[in-house]
Amino acid sequence: MTRKIEILDTTLRDGEQSPGASMNSAEKLIVARQLLRLGVDVIEAGFPPSSPGDFRAVQEIGQLVGDDCVVCAFSRAIEKDIDVAAEALKSARRPRIHTGIGVSQSHLRDKLNITEDECVEQASRAIRYARRFVDDVEFYAEDAGRANKEFLLRVVRAAVEAGATVINIPDTTGYCLPDEYGALVRAVATELEGTGAKLSVHAHDDLGLATALVLAGVRNGATQVECSINGLGERAGNAALEEVVMALSVHEEELGAHTGINTAELVRTSRLVSRITGMAVQANKAVVGANAFAHSAGIHQDGVLKSASTYQIINPSDVGAVGSEIVLSARSGHAALRHRLAELGYSFANEEFDDVYQRFIEMADQKKEVYDEDLESMLEERSRDVEAIYTLDALQIQCGDPLVPTAVATITDEDGVRHVVSSTGTGPVDASYKAIDKVVSVHGDLEEYVVKAITRGIDAIGEVVVRVKSADGMLFTGRGADNDVIVSSAKAYVNAINRMITTQRSREGR
Amino acid sequence: MTRKIEILDTTLRDGEQSPGASMNSAEKLIVARQLLRLGVDVIEAGFPPSSPGDFRAVQEIGQLVGDDCVVCAFSRAIEKDIDVAAEALKSARRPRIHTGIGVSQSHLRDKLNITEDECVEQASRAIRYARRFVDDVEFYAEDAGRANKEFLLRVVRAAVEAGATVINIPDTTGYCLPDEYGALVRAVATELEGTGAKLSVHAHDDLGLATALVLAGVRNGATQVECSINGLGERAGNAALEEVVMALSVHEEELGAHTGINTAELVRTSRLVSRITGMAVQANKAVVGANAFAHSAGIHQDGVLKSASTYQIINPSDVGAVGSEIVLSARSGHAALRHRLAELGYSFANEEFDDVYQRFIEMADQKKEVYDEDLESMLEERSRDVEAIYTLDALQIQCGDPLVPTAVATITDEDGVRHVVSSTGTGPVDASYKAIDKVVSVHGDLEEYVVKAITRGIDAIGEVVVRVKSADGMLFTGRGADNDVIVSSAKAYVNAINRMITTQRSREGR
Repeated sequence: MTRKIEILDTTLRDGEQSPGASMNSAEKLIVARQLLRLGVDVIEAGFPPSSPGDFRAVQEIGQLVGDDCVVCAFSRAIEKDIDVAAEALKSARRPRIHTGIGVSQSHLRDKLNITEDECVEQASRAIRYARRFVDDVEFYAEDAGRANKEFLLRVVRAAVEAGATVINIPDTTGYCLPDEYGALVRAVATELEGTGAKLSVHAHDDLGLATALVLAGVRNGATQVECSINGLGERAGNAALEEVVMALSVHEEELGAHTGINTAELVRTSRLVSRITGMAVQANKAVVGANAFAHSAGIHQDGVLKSASTYQIINPSDVGAVGSEIVLSARSGHAALRHRLAELGYSFANEEFDDVYQRFIEMADQKKEVYDEDLESMLEERSRDVEAIYTLDALQIQCGDPLVPTAVATITDEDGVRHVVSSTGTGPVDASYKAIDKVVSVHGDLEEYVVKAITRGIDAIGEVVVRVKSADGMLFTGRGADNDVIVSSAKAYVNAINRMITTQRSREGR
Repeated sequence: MTRKIEILDTTLRDGEQSPGASMNSAEKLIVARQLLRLGVDVIEAGFPPSSPGDFRAVQEIGQLVGDDCVVCAFSRAIEKDIDVAAEALKSARRPRIHTGIGVSQSHLRDKLNITEDECVEQASRAIRYARRFVDDVEFYAEDAGRANKEFLLRVVRAAVEAGATVINIPDTTGYCLPDEYGALVRAVATELEGTGAKLSVHAHDDLGLATALVLAGVRNGATQVECSINGLGERAGNAALEEVVMALSVHEEELGAHTGINTAELVRTSRLVSRITGMAVQANKAVVGANAFAHSAGIHQDGVLKSASTYQIINPSDVGAVGSEIVLSARSGHAALRHRLAELGYSFANEEFDDVYQRFIEMADQKKEVYDEDLESMLEERSRDVEAIYTLDALQIQCGDPLVPTAVATITDEDGVRHVVSSTGTGPVDASYKAIDKVVSVHGDLEEYVVKAITRGIDAIGEVVVRVKSADGMLFTGRGADNDVIVSSAKAYVNAINRMITTQRSREGR
């Protein structure tokens, strides 16, 4: 029997930190539900002191998962951070606080301006304080990858003495080479022998080595791997969960280890996270990219037709890459929809289901075939909790070449006042945005504009995701879905504006 | 002094093999020119026997690069393949033929159905044959990563005896773990000692380990690394050139090796390849992703403001990630444009420059500010050599909600006949495509639809890339750029249709 490696998923904490990938608490709950289906051991659900939204997400996810997995809240080694993290975890059945401090010379000197003694003291104090609230405390030795080894081992010893149950050795800046990181993890593993503390690895992909780094960690004694769906995370991101899990699956024997992940859920999880965050996965991404199992060269196709194993080391169905071909339509009844939703893991009370069915029929009227992806995007749309401060009631567009693009928009504000505004622009999207700007109280500079054909074919619902920047430099994501891509674009902008105003009000305590 | 590692770039061969990433020969020349600026040692320019386009690209790139780098043509271990490769390389100053054969049990038994003796014999014969044409012959031992080590060493010995100057040990299926691959490379390096043959490594990213694999190869004696821009390639792709080069740059001392790459060109090269192929790079891609140097968590921003090194191991300007802030406008004269183009590496004869300047002024009239990316996309647009079988002269769109999306298109065919057609659709793009379908002789099923805001702001030129499938299942890419996203979409579809017809005619020998 090989060792079981625990998987800590940090999509909702380190992943959600990436620029443009922020999720609201309803979206985080959808992802958490899918992570449960995937079978992760620990969900790192957020950094509660950072915002009320993160606080709520940790609280709600703790209630959602019950005994099924550990819920972890991130916190600096500061008492007031730990207070907030503990409060958010109050109703969780299996709570963990993940606290820590920088241990490299760069972090001690340039960021924290403290001595080594002060660092050890602050770490120990924070762990002891966190243990007052929960029995499970993980300690991260930030930037361990660039730390002095002797000092790192000293911090680790102190952390275990203070009551840490898991020791995390992150390569925070993605600096290490696999062999060097493996040797560091080996040294910590030796230090931890007999203490009962678990050993966790966490790496960043700045040099494209994150997956290799955590695997080197596993080879050298790590018992937990921290990773994220699609490798989301600060800068180049974390080790991608799907890569780590499949490498452990393909090489269980050499690595002497396995995970408890239900690999058949990997592709669905990847798509869900990509859709919710608006962060695209490149076609040539390992395991979950659109081309991951595509063979295009004649030589390769020839080989694969003779025997798949000639050019393929993973069976696509093992990771759920072969899509379900069940297709619903406007002729599908309540039972068929309820059955399919149940298979996808959703269940609804009766009155809620009526609303879902109504939305399904409206969509099925417009599209001939309704795929799983359509259902999932409809449910996500439904769960978004941004207040509708402005509503786009109607939009008329004239454009083309040679024509001056013109938009006429009808918008209702939160006081119920109806505004009809028009504008020309360099294109139809620009004209719509300029028309909308004549009504709304804030303006967003467009930073990114992505059109996603959610589903197959040109009559698909086209979803537009925009990222706009407010006057004070914050980024807000907006989404809109409609069969008409210009209407989607306008809805997305209004959605981003509503999100901007909602956020500003919640910050001002309104 | 550390060893110099040669970089073989295979973006134009293995990369171009990826589904949807195919380039025509004009586009390949643009990429080759940029690879020269980047300073790669070998450009693998194509697989000449596979198509007349690949043949032409190898020929033209061979002429372009002169003495500046080696040009390599790929070929199976078959005499008629080698004949074609040699013919394509005829006018190159530093030609290399890259030939080889599968050496794993899976390839011998399931794909080739030959014995080990026959494999060795075929490899030797092919190498001897290739040496009749060129002095530089690289041998690839396909699927070496899963081969029996003793047999692999036997093939390698035979290849060197037959005259191979470079031995390539590919992990074709991306199967290996870094330590195991390193040990294999070490065994081959020992075998090659004293023979003068170079040792090359080539890995695939199926488990997210490609970069770690080739670095393990370098540590164990490889003298050449094969990689591609943005990691393009079959399935999950190859090792990404930008990751390999930056890992060697950051860890020159530990790896005892360096490259001759001009790292400041990395980001520009990545963007150029992404734009030409239409293959997006995900935001959390190492080195070249949009977020690679973005710090979003408050803790990280705080650290970076105190000292960049707290969370950053690469200086963004070292890889060209800090964009040039020189901005051209409609007020910029001939000299300013010529100067900027020269800085970007483009030069034009006078009459050609007049055409470029005219296009620049048209663009500058529509946009306030013209960035480097705008210039580069304009030049690419100009260089595309698809025949204009159908031309979209005008397009009128009415759409919105509640409105029935309607398109009126004016299209001229190659006989000069003008067609005015109209259609409604589920959205404005659908309406346009249905209108166009009433004129054109073939139909393309939309497989992918990507809108790219090429440059900053909403009044940017919006480029649309579509991938359509012909009746016989081939994929064709089409691109269109206009300030109006619907016009871009229609142009992209017409472009894809023209490409489909051009390709079909060239196959039929017309």
